[in-house]
Parts: sequence; C-alpha cells; structure tokens
Amino acid sequence: MVNGLIRSGDNADLTKERRAATFNVNELSEFIHGGKEVLARRKEILQFVESKPEFKQEIPIEFLSREQRYEQQAKNAVAMTEYATDVIDGSDFFGEGMYYQQLIMGRDLHALSLHYVMFLPTIQNQTTEEQLDKWLGLVITRGISGTYAQTELGHGTNLSQLETTATYDPKTEEFVIHSPTVSAAKWWPGALGKSSTHAIVMAQLITGGQGYGPHPFIVQLRDLENHKPLKGITVGDIGPKLGINGSDNGFLLFNNYRIPRENMLMRHAKVTKEGKYIHPKHQKLGYGSMVFVRSIMIRDQSLQLAAASTIATRYSAVRRQGEPVPGKGEVQILDYRTQQLRIIPQISKTLAFLFAASEVRDLYLKVTEQLSDGNVELLPELHSLSSGLKSVVSWEVAQGIEQCRLACGGHGYSQASGFPEIYAYAVGGCTYEGENIVMLLQVARQLLKSVTKFKSSTAKLAEIDGYLGNPAVSQTSFHGLNGLIPQVLINDFEEVARKQIFGVWDRFESLKKSLSESEAFNKVSIDLCRASRWHVKAYLVKNFFSYISRFQGSARIKEILLDLASLYALDQISAGLSHFLRDGYYSQGQADQVKLSIETLLERLRPEAVAIVDSFDFSDRELHSVLGRRDGNVYENLLKWAQQSQLNRADVLDAYHKYLGPMMKEGRAKL
Amino acid sequence: MVNGLIRSGDNADLTKERRAATFNVNELSEFIHGGKEVLARRKEILQFVESKPEFKQEIPIEFLSREQRYEQQAKNAVAMTEYATDVIDGSDFFGEGMYYQQLIMGRDLHALSLHYVMFLPTIQNQTTEEQLDKWLGLVITRGISGTYAQTELGHGTNLSQLETTATYDPKTEEFVIHSPTVSAAKWWPGALGKSSTHAIVMAQLITGGQGYGPHPFIVQLRDLENHKPLKGITVGDIGPKLGINGSDNGFLLFNNYRIPRENMLMRHAKVTKEGKYIHPKHQKLGYGSMVFVRSIMIRDQSLQLAAASTIATRYSAVRRQGEPVPGKGEVQILDYRTQQLRIIPQISKTLAFLFAASEVRDLYLKVTEQLSDGNVELLPELHSLSSGLKSVVSWEVAQGIEQCRLACGGHGYSQASGFPEIYAYAVGGCTYEGENIVMLLQVARQLLKSVTKFKSSTAKLAEIDGYLGNPAVSQTSFHGLNGLIPQVLINDFEEVARKQIFGVWDRFESLKKSLSESEAFNKVSIDLCRASRWHVKAYLVKNFFSYISRFQGSARIKEILLDLASLYALDQISAGLSHFLRDGYYSQGQADQVKLSIETLLERLRPEAVAIVDSFDFSDRELHSVLGRRDGNVYENLLKWAQQSQLNRADVLDAYHKYLGPMMKEGRAKL
Repeated sequence: MVNGLIRSGDNADLTKERRAATFNVNELSEFIHGGKEVLARRKEILQFVESKPEFKQEIPIEFLSREQRYEQQAKNAVAMTEYATDVIDGSDFFGEGMYYQQLIMGRDLHALSLHYVMFLPTIQNQTTEEQLDKWLGLVITRGISGTYAQTELGHGTNLSQLETTATYDPKTEEFVIHSPTVSAAKWWPGALGKSSTHAIVMAQLITGGQGYGPHPFIVQLRDLENHKPLKGITVGDIGPKLGINGSDNGFLLFNNYRIPRENMLMRHAKVTKEGKYIHPKHQKLGYGSMVFVRSIMIRDQSLQLAAASTIATRYSAVRRQGEPVPGKGEVQILDYRTQQLRIIPQISKTLAFLFAASEVRDLYLKVTEQLSDGNVELLPELHSLSSGLKSVVSWEVAQGIEQCRLACGGHGYSQASGFPEIYAYAVGGCTYEGENIVMLLQVARQLLKSVTKFKSSTAKLAEIDGYLGNPAVSQTSFHGLNGLIPQVLINDFEEVARKQIFGVWDRFESLKKSLSESEAFNKVSIDLCRASRWHVKAYLVKNFFSYISRFQGSARIKEILLDLASLYALDQISAGLSHFLRDGYYSQGQADQVKLSIETLLERLRPEAVAIVDSFDFSDRELHSVLGRRDGNVYENLLKWAQQSQLNRADVLDAYHKYLGPMMKEGRAKL
Repeated sequence: MVNGLIRSGDNADLTKERRAATFNVNELSEFIHGGKEVLARRKEILQFVESKPEFKQEIPIEFLSREQRYEQQAKNAVAMTEYATDVIDGSDFFGEGMYYQQLIMGRDLHALSLHYVMFLPTIQNQTTEEQLDKWLGLVITRGISGTYAQTELGHGTNLSQLETTATYDPKTEEFVIHSPTVSAAKWWPGALGKSSTHAIVMAQLITGGQGYGPHPFIVQLRDLENHKPLKGITVGDIGPKLGINGSDNGFLLFNNYRIPRENMLMRHAKVTKEGKYIHPKHQKLGYGSMVFVRSIMIRDQSLQLAAASTIATRYSAVRRQGEPVPGKGEVQILDYRTQQLRIIPQISKTLAFLFAASEVRDLYLKVTEQLSDGNVELLPELHSLSSGLKSVVSWEVAQGIEQCRLACGGHGYSQASGFPEIYAYAVGGCTYEGENIVMLLQVARQLLKSVTKFKSSTAKLAEIDGYLGNPAVSQTSFHGLNGLIPQVLINDFEEVARKQIFGVWDRFESLKKSLSESEAFNKVSIDLCRASRWHVKAYLVKNFFSYISRFQGSARIKEILLDLASLYALDQISAGLSHFLRDGYYSQGQADQVKLSIETLLERLRPEAVAIVDSFDFSDRELHSVLGRRDGNVYENLLKWAQQSQLNRADVLDAYHKYLGPMMKEGRAKL
C-alpha cells in the first residue's frame, strides 16, 4: 500500500518493498504509538526541534572528540530544557518527554541528565518544608545544577557498606563529609564530573560517636561564581566508557569537607542541633526513583531494538549480494532465510517489549496515584515486574542489536550504521539501575515467597504470579500454525515457568535441610535466575497476545500482529527448547513443528518487513544511521559521511611527515 | 602454590588466591604456550619492547583522539618493523610475530598492517620475474607502502560483481582504471585511507571490448615526494568504526586513471601489448591468503577471550560485594555461583580455542609445505576447518567477552577495564575474512558432499568428517562426572552433529524434488548453519581432550585440564540441550546430571581460577586493563587512570563559560 514514505529519488528496491506491503503503515503506526493524536504530536515535536537553529547538527556527533561532544551536549541540554515547556506536555514524560529528549540528545546523556531525573525528585521528596523553600526554586530555575552521588568506587548495590562518612560536629553545627579511602570515592554519577554545582550525597551518618547508616545530604561542590571545585572537594570525569561519552560521569572525594547541619535532608530522619539522632517515623519506601527509572528503561530499551531492526531491515532490502542462480543477478539479502532469521525475530521482540513497556507505564501511573493515597498494595508487583523486565529486555535488546549489526556485514561495523552507538547505549542497561543478575535473583526471591504462600495457604497470588496456581499439564496442545490459538502458547510458557519455579523451590527447601539459607540460595542461584527469566518470558508472551487482542482495525494488520506474536513466542521456545521437551511436554514431532512454523512465519512476514519497521515511525534525525535512511540511498551517503572523517581534514597527515615519509625515503635510498 | 606472580604490596585477596592454588602456574603456562623455551622467548620479547623508548606509552591510547591515535600507531608501526629482525624469529609469525605485534600495537591495526600481510605476499605470488625485480625491493625496504583493495562499497564476497574496471588501451599500452559508480568505490582496505602509496587493486579486466573477470593490478595512489593523491585518484579514510580506530581503513575512487600495461600482475593471466588476453595455464588456487589469515585469526581471537577471562577472574577475586550472612562482611564476588557460571566457562573456552588454533597452525604449515610440492590434498580440509572454526570461535569469543565484561558490573563499562576495546576488536572477526554465516554455509556444502560421498560409495572421508561414517547410537553413556571418560562426551557431540548433518541432507534432497537447488538450499539454510556449528563443536571437544591427553606433567594439572575440558563440553551440551534430548538420546535424568555436573565443576575450579588465568601469561602491558592488573590494586589505579581523562585537562570547561554558567546565572537572577 503506497504511503507517505515513498518519494521520488528513493532507492528502487525500497520503494518496491513499500509498494508491495499489504497494509496501511499509518494504521499500524497509530496502534504501536497509541493513537492518531500521539502520532500527530510526534510530528509537531519533530518539526519544532528541526526548526530551532540550536539543534542543527553541523558535524555528526561521531566525528567529535570527547571534549567537543560534551560541549555540544551541554549546549543542547540548556536549549532543550529552556524550550521544553513550549513544546511538550510535561505530564507525559514517558511519551513526549522521552521522545523530545531522544530527538535532541540522541543516545547519550548530558550535563543536566541527573538534574531532572534524580536531583529534583530527591529535593521534592526528602526535604523538610524549610529545606524545600530554600532549594526548590534554585533547582527549578536551573540556578544550580545537581546530581545524585551514591555508588562508590568500591561499592555498588550494597548500600550499607558505603564508606563516605558524614560526622556531626555539634560545636559548629556542621557535618564533616569525608572519604576515608580511595574506594570511598563517589563514582559514576552522571553530570558529576564537570557540570554539577551540587550533589545529593549518600553518606554514613555518624553522631555522638554512633553510626546510623546511609543518609542523604545536599552538598555544594563548585563555586557559583567561577565553577571551580571548592576546597576539600576533588571532582572530575571518570574517563571514556563503552558509550555515552558526551556525558561527564564523575568521581568525587571529600577531605573533611564541612556542610551546615541543615544540609542533611530531614524529611524522614533528623539530627538535632545537639547531635541527637531522630529516627524516621516510618520505614522509608526505598523503591521510588529506581522503579521510575526502570519503568522508563523498558520503553527506552525497546526503542533501541526498534531502531536496530529498522536499520537492518531497510539495508537488507537495499543491499544486493550473491547470485543463487548464476546470471540471474544479485538478490536482496533480505531474501536469504538466514538473514530473515537474524532480523525478523528482532522486529517481533521490539513489539513484545514495547507493549510490555506500555503496561509497565500504566502500572507505574496507577501505583503513583495509589501511593499519593498512602496505598502501597501494588508497589511490590511493580517492583518485581519492572526489575524482571529490565533484566530480560535489556539483555535481549543488546543481543538483538548485535544480530542486526552483524546482519549488515562490514558496513554494520562502521559508525555510519549507527549500530556501535545503539549497542553501547543499550547494553549499559544490563548493568545500571540494578545489575541484571542481581535483579533476577530479587525477582526469584519474590517467586519463592509466592510458592510458599501458595503451598501453605489459600492466600491470593498477585496477578502476575497467578499462573503458579495452575494445575500441571502433561502435554502441550501445540501442533503447528494451522488453527493455532494464542492461549496454547501462553499455556506453554506458563507451564514451563511454573515447573521451573516449583522445581527450584523444591531444591532450595531440600538444600536448606543441610545448608544455611544463604549457602542454599547461592547453590541454586543459577536455577533461580533461569526461573525468573521464564517467569518474565511468560509475562511477555501473554501480554503480547492480550495487547494485540485490543486492536480493532483492519483484518490484515491483525493477521500480521498475530504472526509477529507467534513468531516471538516460537522463537523463544526454539531458543529454550530443552525446557519444553522436559518430561515429554513437547514431543519431538511438536518440537520439529516449532522450527517449521518459524520458517513459515519468516516467509510470510518477509514481504511486509520494510513496512512494519516503517511503522515504528523513526525520522532520519532520530535513527541517525546512514544504512537505515528512509530513502535507502545508502552508498552515496556513506561516501559523503566518510568524507567528514577526522582523518580527512588534511590530504597528508603529520604521521607522514614525521614517520612514514622518512621511512620510505630511507627505504628507497637503500636500493 | 606460591609463584613469581606474588609480590609485596599486592591486593591481599589476590595473593590469597594465588597461595591457595594447588598447582604450579609455570608448568601449566608452559603447556599452554608450547614449552619452556617459548615462555622464555616471550619474556625476552617483552623486555625488548619495554626497553625501547619509542614504545613507551605516555598517554594510554584510549585518551587519544583518532588523529593522535593514528599518528601514534604509525610511529609504532615504523619502529616495530624496523626492529623486528633484531628480536623475533621471522619464521614464527604465528607465535613470536603475533606476540611482538600485539605488545606494540595492542588491539588495533596500523599504517603498515596490510603491507606485510597482503601487499607483500601478493607481490611475491602474482608477479612475473620482471615485475618481481621491479617491486620486491621497494616493498621489502619499505620504500613504498601498500595495501590490497578488493571489497567495494556495494560488493563484498561476490567477487564476480566487482564494478571497478581496468580497460586496456592498446594505443598507449595502458590500462584505464575507473569507478563507474559510487558503489564501485573500494571500501575498507586497512591503511588505504592516509598511509599507503600503492595498492593491489582488483578490477574487471576489459580488453578488445570483452570482459575477463576480476584481475589484480598494482596502482600508485600517492605522490612519492609529497604523498598527495595523484590526479584521477580520490582516496580517504572511511571514518570511525566500532573499533580499530587507529587504523585508516580507506575508500578509493578512480576517474579514468591510467597505469602502464606492466602494472597488471601477470604471473597467471596476461594481456599482450596488442591487447590479447592470455588465459592462465592453471586455474589459480584462490584459497591462499584467506586461509592464512583465518588460521592466524583462531589464535588471535582465542587470546582476546583469554584476556577477557583474565580480567574478569582477577577482578572478581578483588571485588567484594554483598553480605550473604549479615554482619559477616562482604564476600568476593567470585564466590557467587552465578558469577562462576559467567566466567569459568570462558576460561575453558579459551583453552578449547587455543588448542584448536595450535592444530590449525600445524595443519597450515603442513599444507604450505605440501603446496610447495604442488600437492593440494589437504587444502580443502584446511579451508573447511579454518572457515568453520573462524565462525564458531569468533562468535563464541565475542559472546564470552561480553559475559566477562558484564560480570564486572559498572567498571566493566569503563574503558579502564579494557573490555570495550577487546570486544570491538574481537567481534570484528565475525565479519571480516568471510562473514560467519557465509562461512558456515560453505562448510555445510562440504558436509553435504561428504554425506553424498559416504552414501554413494565406500570412498574414504576426510579425517575431520570421519565420524559421519559412525553407526547411529540410541543412548548416551553419560551418567555424570563420576568415572566419566572423555570418549563418552566426544561420542555425544559426534552423534549430535552426525544426526543434524544427515537430517539436513535428507531434507535438502527431498526439497530438491520440487524446488530448484538454490531454492532448496535457501530453505534449509538455517539447518545447514546449525549442522556446521555442531560439526565444529564436535571437533573442538574432540581436539580439547586429545590435546590434553598429551600432557605429561603433574597429575594435579592433568586433573584440572580434564575438568576444564569436561566443563567446556558440558556447558556446550547445556546450551544446546534440546539436540541431545532428541529421540531420547539423553534422558531427562541425564540432562539434569549435565546441569549438576556443571555446578560441581564450577565449585572445583573456583579455587584454581586465578592461578589458571595467571598461566595465560599476560603482562600488564599486553592486557592493558586496570581491572585485570597483576597486583589487583584496582581502585587507586582506576582513580589515577580517570585523572588522565580528556575532560580533566581543565578544572572548568568552555561549556561552563558558554552555556551552563549563563544558564545558572540567569536562573538565580529570577529568584
């Protein structure tokens, strides 16, 4: 079906693909993005950004040095936050906010990254009224800029072992912030190295010679007049990373640095002038901001896979290579079955994750609403869901991006493809905001509890764990694609997940008879991670089918969505087939059907692939990939791109004059 | 057992690990590297390199801009080739040559990368006597520097479709080299962009109006006096890549550029003055240099995984995090079972691949010797083995490196860890010198032929395919680690590989009845790749056990080697368990034994892990990783490393003066 994506001058193969697609791209796009209005708003925001001269990218970011990149991102961040209220709906951070930011900052962080996401919310939530009065205006007007410093060089997830101390001195009514060792250095906070004037610092509170555990303090790091680090503060950038190199992630050391008592954030715990520690009234809920960031991450990660699969699909339609029938000309590489297997499942994963992200957002908004009424009922469920999804999605996204990149051959290795940056950015998600294995073990603890609950009583399981109460089934009803109903696949995943969770529960209980709980837990931890993964996969499959069941549009799109969901499920079954074969739940014949069904689905989806990725609605600006350009004019633009290379700024480089020239001259003189 | 790796001032945990190991590291190291003399030579070469001021690294390479990096690598390359004959045994490129280069160039290429590996051998093998006389001296004295330009922007593996033309003009006795389109641009050759004065160019030979396919020409690109590109030549760097950014991979376009007739390399085909094409006497053997490079790659790739697992193991012994028993202090993260599963199998893979690399080297040397007598008997076997190993090893290495990196948490994401560079360098191996999927399909074609041969006659199978003639077995003899003999595991892999290869052969034959051969091949190509992979895995397992069976030293090391080989095999079985479960070859109980055996092996190998990676014999210079330092003093050195960051060269950056400062001043003015 012809659509607005076809223009004259486009690559002929890409146009052919778009003409041959059998559905309306806009209709699918509306469903994926949540409606006509959302799509229209995306267009408006894009036009706004493209209309502002500040956001014009003279030189693509990949040609900049780290210094230049940091500076350009700082410039963009200031303008972006300046204009934000003009163009986006501030209440829709998950949608408009993230889209606006991605259009301007690309796949990088910036000088104000933590100011809005961590600094501001902490000020809002952890201060007394007087403290709020003092700080909120400064934060909101961007009169200061802040970050959140918790992780230390030697300490990550285990907060109780942070080494930075805040010792109260009643004589001066000050806290003395100190880093007793090198491993106490704060390490990693975004925008800490060169940008932030202030930080929320988590430090071990000591008063009256007694320690009370980590508490938050607001600390000024740099002089407001000249931005130099204040005396007692050592602060700097932690150096280049795999990705996000426009960001000045920083380190921070304190040498007996004094701050007023009032700089301890005292909404919950307090220290009096005299140095008396006053315990918080309620055990503070620790989940808050982590859950927020993880909930956002699911969508952000999904979009990276969306980008990668868009690039790989378009390029595979443009690239011709190999002549299966000699003399008949080279074929589009998307016609190779092996290429289809690399790319098309990534498209299906993208949708599985995007639809899950949408559910997590809704759950997050619901929880936030409940929390404001003091209701914490759904918080553990959100915590568990967002942690589990974060782990599974970030890992699968990273793997999928690399498959897409590898599917583009040599050009995939060039930064022109966009893949190196997409991968570096996305794979960070496996580590930050809770390392994936740690997260999976947390989810597993929750699941073990659910099993215990289920076994010992008739207490109601949380909705997401509900299937744990299903009766065991001895054989799948899957017999291939013909007449396949989604519930069959959902049942299969739930059965496999249920079996694994009960299996590891049994093993854990049995080991606890001879080992300590922590030893037993460690011994079964491989199984625990696996069980958590299948629990999350079961959720993803179920949610994919239930999400698309709400689609009310054209029958053809419904078919395609069902094919994609089936492909997602079958591809996952294929990857973990041994679990489905256990105890003959799948017969060998049924397992073979899985493989053949995948091949059939690849064949069916192949002609629609370009149009499906078109429906992800990436502009060239957002995609930032020569291989993935809408117009498919890849080769001439690769050449144009390369001509901007740093090494091409002069015909002859100093290395020739200094080393290569003399070497060759000397060599020729020998002859 | 105490050894030379323990020194005062080392991290206490690392020393503890080294003291607790139950074997002699030097003895294992000698076995891995091929003897006492080899180890001694490694020490000598290292000392030589460290003694030369040219090779002193003032600023670690990761802090340099691309321009600086290219220049430093050019400087190093000139000195490295200058000194080479003083220090290394030129006949041992696989061993000493590669080690020497890695010590100096790290994980990057350089201005002379292609000069020795592709340009020189082509000059040696494809020229007439007169041509050799003219060029060889210039190449050997480094009077000119050259590269090899084959791949084009739009054309990779399918040589017949190269677009660059070389049209003979008998009037002037010249060839006119021309790039008729943008997609004809030569693209990717190392050292082409800024360094090389000459290139071997593959171009479509046209004479008398007729095309004769791609032929090699030697083409001067740059002026020998001022290094400027000659008229008719457009040449430059292709821009930043995922990795190897010290290398000026280049593009090259010709605008009716004329070269003398004598610049066609005429050992095989010729064009006379009059323009008559003379066919080569023998069909030239195309495998030569590709097989050489792939054979070297196996070892090179293995060493990257060796480096990654060394870093991850040492850091996991140094890093303490989490208190499984509250109050008992934080534990070394290497004690977590999940961490062991991430890292220790990578150690076992490293050895599997290194030992295979050693066999490939021996086969390569044998084939080279045979070829000099005109004997091509073993060439197809070497081609198939090196292609198959290249695909499986490069992919598993890349995956393994990322596991090691992720196992190091946030610090793994920093370039201080070395991982980003190791990964970027290694994963390129999945694409260059034959894209992995293309390679696997080539291996599969060979396997299909072997099956046909086996089915239709009693012809002898090549040694590596010999197991295809084994009778089918219905049940494994594996029953856990107790009394396990290697042959049981070898049989299992061969049975699984055999079954897959015969299975896809049957399917292919059956599809050919209704489809063309190329359609049928495409339809079964997913199965073909899988079958090739298992064929290679069977080789790796068999070779691992047979290689270590030759070890004659201490019984304890023998035990450890057997544990590592068993872990390698069982980990692979676990990852592809569904294939072993097929038709009940493994029962569910046996499958469960695989999992439990892996856990047992992890537990047994845990206390030896640091000593095993010590035996890989990396110097700090070669490893180039703050996390992987021999002394384990990670934290203070991370801080020192970070302080060299580009962004730390000034306390206050321009971005503050231009953007952040004014923003904050304005913000504060509003209050």
